[in-house]
Amino acid sequence: MKDQLKNSQQIYRFENGILQEQFDEIVVEQPLTIMLNGEEFATMVCSPEHLEELTIGFLASEGFIRQEEEIKSISIDESKGIAYIDLLVPVTTSHEFHSKRFIGSCCGKSRQFYFHNDARTAKTSTSKITITPDQCLNIMKQLQDSSVTFQETGGVHNAALFSGEIMVVNRTDIGRHNALDKIYGYCIQNKISVRDKIIAFSGRISSEVLLKAAKIGVGIILSKSAPTNLAIQLAEDLNITAVGFIRGNSFNVYSHPSRIVE
Amino acid sequence: MKDQLKNSQQIYRFENGILQEQFDEIVVEQPLTIMLNGEEFATMVCSPEHLEELTIGFLASEGFIRQEEEIKSISIDESKGIAYIDLLVPVTTSHEFHSKRFIGSCCGKSRQFYFHNDARTAKTSTSKITITPDQCLNIMKQLQDSSVTFQETGGVHNAALFSGEIMVVNRTDIGRHNALDKIYGYCIQNKISVRDKIIAFSGRISSEVLLKAAKIGVGIILSKSAPTNLAIQLAEDLNITAVGFIRGNSFNVYSHPSRIVE
Repeated sequence: MKDQLKNSQQIYRFENGILQEQFDEIVVEQPLTIMLNGEEFATMVCSPEHLEELTIGFLASEGFIRQEEEIKSISIDESKGIAYIDLLVPVTTSHEFHSKRFIGSCCGKSRQFYFHNDARTAKTSTSKITITPDQCLNIMKQLQDSSVTFQETGGVHNAALFSGEIMVVNRTDIGRHNALDKIYGYCIQNKISVRDKIIAFSGRISSEVLLKAAKIGVGIILSKSAPTNLAIQLAEDLNITAVGFIRGNSFNVYSHPSRIVE
Repeated sequence: MKDQLKNSQQIYRFENGILQEQFDEIVVEQPLTIMLNGEEFATMVCSPEHLEELTIGFLASEGFIRQEEEIKSISIDESKGIAYIDLLVPVTTSHEFHSKRFIGSCCGKSRQFYFHNDARTAKTSTSKITITPDQCLNIMKQLQDSSVTFQETGGVHNAALFSGEIMVVNRTDIGRHNALDKIYGYCIQNKISVRDKIIAFSGRISSEVLLKAAKIGVGIILSKSAPTNLAIQLAEDLNITAVGFIRGNSFNVYSHPSRIVE
């Protein structure tokens, strides 16, 4: 794990019946406040690296940014934990509305969205990509190999974007959504086409994680953990292939299995 | 795991080189929208049980409720995932303010709060409770034994309130904060004094988890995982003993070790 993600600190260790002072590596967690067009927009806690990506990815997943050209300026005050970002257009949608419950049907079809914002920004995948079972296993192995410290401490979530079996970008964060937002921000900053790429994720596929993948725009999400039932419903709806429990030489496909072919 | 927390669903399992249909147990995740005094207040996703406790605990941790007598009525529409709760007094504090960044010092002392709301509701512990190392180990063993399905699937977070070595209440949820909010709601509904009790938690002690423990009002939090550096700073500040990595016969004390005595 990189240095800014942890620091050494005095603790008290109980072992062999004795409580003794010693030093231990502690994972770092910092607040980041996003100032959007001069107004306080949101505060999150995160691992303090790739904060521009996190800011851009978070605002993209909230529906405020689609491409880098819409950003007038961005700067990070690391010591205060503040991201200043100005967009070329004024922000018209009220933040309040974004977290309002979405109840109803869309195009005559019942959808599982629970926030208005998600119904607006989550994309139905049009990807025709297919991968083989061996590629599935290999991608998850690469994700796990890339993050030894994660396996040791269970301390951070790990997400990566793959083009076939090639890892394009890999991000870690103490917050599960932050790791995915950093990937999203990276793709926007580097103009990476995501339609036929794959997200691999270290944690459970909750509805929020599935929605992040849909907002980024991929057609396949792979995880070593299981999805929730709500995530599976959303994956069905948004034409995303959700694969979980990738362990050893086996895995489960929870939706749209036609993308997994020999 | 109880029936409403999972359901059986058709999936596709890849094993021994073949992709085959089979049934699997999938963890249930549902949105819950809180209607506070007739207005939409917040939506979260959760495991669908103990929803009254979750609603009360969530509002208590947001600073809207301190005791059950302040609640005029509460009812849950389980099919729609809506909690209707009316308080005896109008809600005066704007929700917007609650998630505003808190920057500054308090009483001349630098504090680590990052939300105004937390600075208002997190309590400095006045508990004089002490526990022995053996009690520490025994409490974590009880928490783990109480949740076999959690250990199998890694699917839900598990939190419990202990009075000495006696487990008072135990709650699970797919959301880490929800499990703690359900405990908080239970304590308010059952008028349980929390000052000298102990929280045991299955997951990492993040700043948000530490703040929940402070809001509930306990003096000791035990976990089998590690805390973040921000959680340790808050624990120092709020006079809470944070114990982590409780595994086998050893553990680490990260703050206020004077509550752990032979």
